[in-house]
Amino acid sequence: MTDILEANDRIAVGNAEVFGKNRNLVLNLMSSPGAGKTTLLEKTAEIFRGELRLGVITGDVETSRDAQRLRKHKLPVVQLTTGSACHLDANMITYALPHIDLKKIDILIIENVGNLVCPAGFKLGEDYKIMMLSVTEGDDKPLKYPRMFRESSLVLINKIDLLEYTNFSLKEAKANVRKVNPKMDIIDISCTTGEGISDWIAWLNQHYQKKFGTEART
Amino acid sequence: MTDILEANDRIAVGNAEVFGKNRNLVLNLMSSPGAGKTTLLEKTAEIFRGELRLGVITGDVETSRDAQRLRKHKLPVVQLTTGSACHLDANMITYALPHIDLKKIDILIIENVGNLVCPAGFKLGEDYKIMMLSVTEGDDKPLKYPRMFRESSLVLINKIDLLEYTNFSLKEAKANVRKVNPKMDIIDISCTTGEGISDWIAWLNQHYQKKFGTEART
Repeated sequence: MTDILEANDRIAVGNAEVFGKNRNLVLNLMSSPGAGKTTLLEKTAEIFRGELRLGVITGDVETSRDAQRLRKHKLPVVQLTTGSACHLDANMITYALPHIDLKKIDILIIENVGNLVCPAGFKLGEDYKIMMLSVTEGDDKPLKYPRMFRESSLVLINKIDLLEYTNFSLKEAKANVRKVNPKMDIIDISCTTGEGISDWIAWLNQHYQKKFGTEART
Repeated sequence: MTDILEANDRIAVGNAEVFGKNRNLVLNLMSSPGAGKTTLLEKTAEIFRGELRLGVITGDVETSRDAQRLRKHKLPVVQLTTGSACHLDANMITYALPHIDLKKIDILIIENVGNLVCPAGFKLGEDYKIMMLSVTEGDDKPLKYPRMFRESSLVLINKIDLLEYTNFSLKEAKANVRKVNPKMDIIDISCTTGEGISDWIAWLNQHYQKKFGTEART
């Protein structure tokens, strides 16, 4: 297992070099199944039109439904179907790269397989890992699946429009996030009402500038 | 990997023999994180009081929060903490058995790690696999994670009290379940309102009788 992870990390370093040359900020977006990753990407695509250019690599065990949804928003999308694998690995990303024109993308979001355990173990070449936690999953998830929260830089707490219908406590959830990762950025959002999406967009812009400076791309 | 699975299946057969001798109906309950497995067990414990006797083995990556919740309901509970493993396997169950008095249990529910991919590959010695799918996860999940739905005998569609706040279609979800598993039993439930819980209890009683007949336990 250690050998597999070391080999994966070497390939991830190669991917990161390719992304750097192409001026791509790369985010590895992880969550439970159905937390709202694809809907977030749809919303982000709507709002980003004309500014920084988005691209997506999306991983699923089976089907290309997510890619179909995203293509309607005119996003460059590559669908990876993992078969029985419960996570993406660096090598799968390497295979995807020839199928997407990285020169035409500023921010590449890799939508991982819906799973709170295994994806955390595999670097893909990303700049940041991002967690999405939906209100309907319960506020105890950061403690029950700590590794993923520990390794992420941002958690998006999604479906806050459903807060009043659940026993989810935002305060408790944030305290639990801080217990496993005191430095985590936290943004509350609802992909249904649009609340908080502008904060997420601001986070993306800030982190793009942090990597590449404010100079315009040519 | 094949060797690991074969070894697992051999151990599962041994577990099943132990369960048969002790007159236990054994169910492997699987879902995404936060779909409501522990809440269902709490509800079931309340209603079952005095009838068939429940016991639980619960698996989590970290923490013993689920066991703590269930012990409040006076259920016999064993907590398995898997560390980095994203699923339970037959050997973990074998280790749990000395810690639970199977002679005092009629129905043993094994609450698997929240994950829609890997748990399906590992038999534990159960009579039936049961899926829980919550409304807030989306109606496309049976197609995106087909193996787990294919191998289960019953799917509980949970959180139907939230139907009106989501774009989840019960009709579409059931059609998707039938596409991957035409024989699946389907029960709609809400652990919050209690709707459908009596149908779930009836399913448990029927399947206990199917395995052991109607004769009373001595």
